Amino acid sequence: MAIELYDLAGANPAVRFSPYCWRIRMALAHKGLDCTTIPVRFMDKDKLAFSGQQLVPVIRDGEKIVSDSWDIALYLDEAYPDRPKLFEGPQARALANFVCQWTQMRINLPVLKIVMMDLFHSIDDGDKAYFRTSREQRFGMTLEQFTGDENENRKVLAGELTPLRNILSDQPFLSGDAPAYADYALFGTFMWARNVSPRALLEPQSAIEGWRERMLDLFDGLARQSATSYLR
Amino acid sequence: MAIELYDLAGANPAVRFSPYCWRIRMALAHKGLDCTTIPVRFMDKDKLAFSGQQLVPVIRDGEKIVSDSWDIALYLDEAYPDRPKLFEGPQARALANFVCQWTQMRINLPVLKIVMMDLFHSIDDGDKAYFRTSREQRFGMTLEQFTGDENENRKVLAGELTPLRNILSDQPFLSGDAPAYADYALFGTFMWARNVSPRALLEPQSAIEGWRERMLDLFDGLARQSATSYLR
Repeated sequence: MAIELYDLAGANPAVRFSPYCWRIRMALAHKGLDCTTIPVRFMDKDKLAFSGQQLVPVIRDGEKIVSDSWDIALYLDEAYPDRPKLFEGPQARALANFVCQWTQMRINLPVLKIVMMDLFHSIDDGDKAYFRTSREQRFGMTLEQFTGDENENRKVLAGELTPLRNILSDQPFLSGDAPAYADYALFGTFMWARNVSPRALLEPQSAIEGWRERMLDLFDGLARQSATSYLR
Repeated sequence: MAIELYDLAGANPAVRFSPYCWRIRMALAHKGLDCTTIPVRFMDKDKLAFSGQQLVPVIRDGEKIVSDSWDIALYLDEAYPDRPKLFEGPQARALANFVCQWTQMRINLPVLKIVMMDLFHSIDDGDKAYFRTSREQRFGMTLEQFTGDENENRKVLAGELTPLRNILSDQPFLSGDAPAYADYALFGTFMWARNVSPRALLEPQSAIEGWRERMLDLFDGLARQSATSYLR
């Protein structure tokens, strides 16, 4: 039976934008595991009660229920050791953990600033009050204030991404010759932006844009074919 | 015969502070390879002519001459495959490359700002004019202007290091349960600071300070016992 992935959805339930769900969507494809995604809106958190917590992603694999993207990734390599590995071994896993935290602590913020209002307009009307209140409380300012200057945000993002840019002259993926979990971890953040916003985060033709394009092509264009909340 | 490592030296030739040389010093110890270090000052670049370029580190291993810290690390795992590996495999190597670039592009600058004047005072008098002119040209300002506000620099550094801080609750080293090349890459930057400056970069008792302490302890305190240009 296909693994069920509980996945954050927008006003259009086909639009999926959670960066952490995208990590798992790509990880499942990497392992060649079938999955059925179940759309969850911010106000649908009751759907996740069976997992004992409130955050996506959650997977249900037969009897097994796992939440938290990192724990799900570890579970998938452990439960399906004969499928392509997300982590070559313990050292690669430890370093991928670093890339996950780097993405979360350094990359997500400038990306979110650029796409925040587009994201807000993409979610369901019933989710908007909760989203605005919770985010404004977290950031201590209105969503509109949080966005700041778009070009400045793009400059900050480009600066944070320089380590990736530099390695792409040696290797096509973060994980080397082929993509693996570290790539999916960062790519999730780009999918968060892509599926809600037409704004470019990266210089066209840049090395990192080349990486993003290669990621969009993986698994027969799984990510490229995913729905966006605007016309491309 | 011991491998020769050409290593940047201060006014006191026992003081070694090049972050890239420290990567290799630790890498050689990791592999259990004997090494003899040869002090090189900024004005001694002629000593490196045999390597066909002007930058430390350079190693001479019998007939073989290798420069550039990354190329040296790759060489050591290739030439000594039966010794402890610096890289578990190709994926870990690719991700360690990322950590090297992250260190260089995001960590070195705030560290250098904090220790710049102490570094300047630690180098040989004969090196000072070259050092000042080349660095002032690179940064487009005087060394004194470059340093900026020390507390602000420490805040920037702490922000850049958050991804490392976060993984240290899961694992004692960047590379997992045991240190490997990614750890040496970042640690080199801390040795650059430590051996020329008494200034603290990190909060005492912090998780990252704990990691730095563990790194100082490795290989019977190899790094901890190294000479500094000031009394500890």
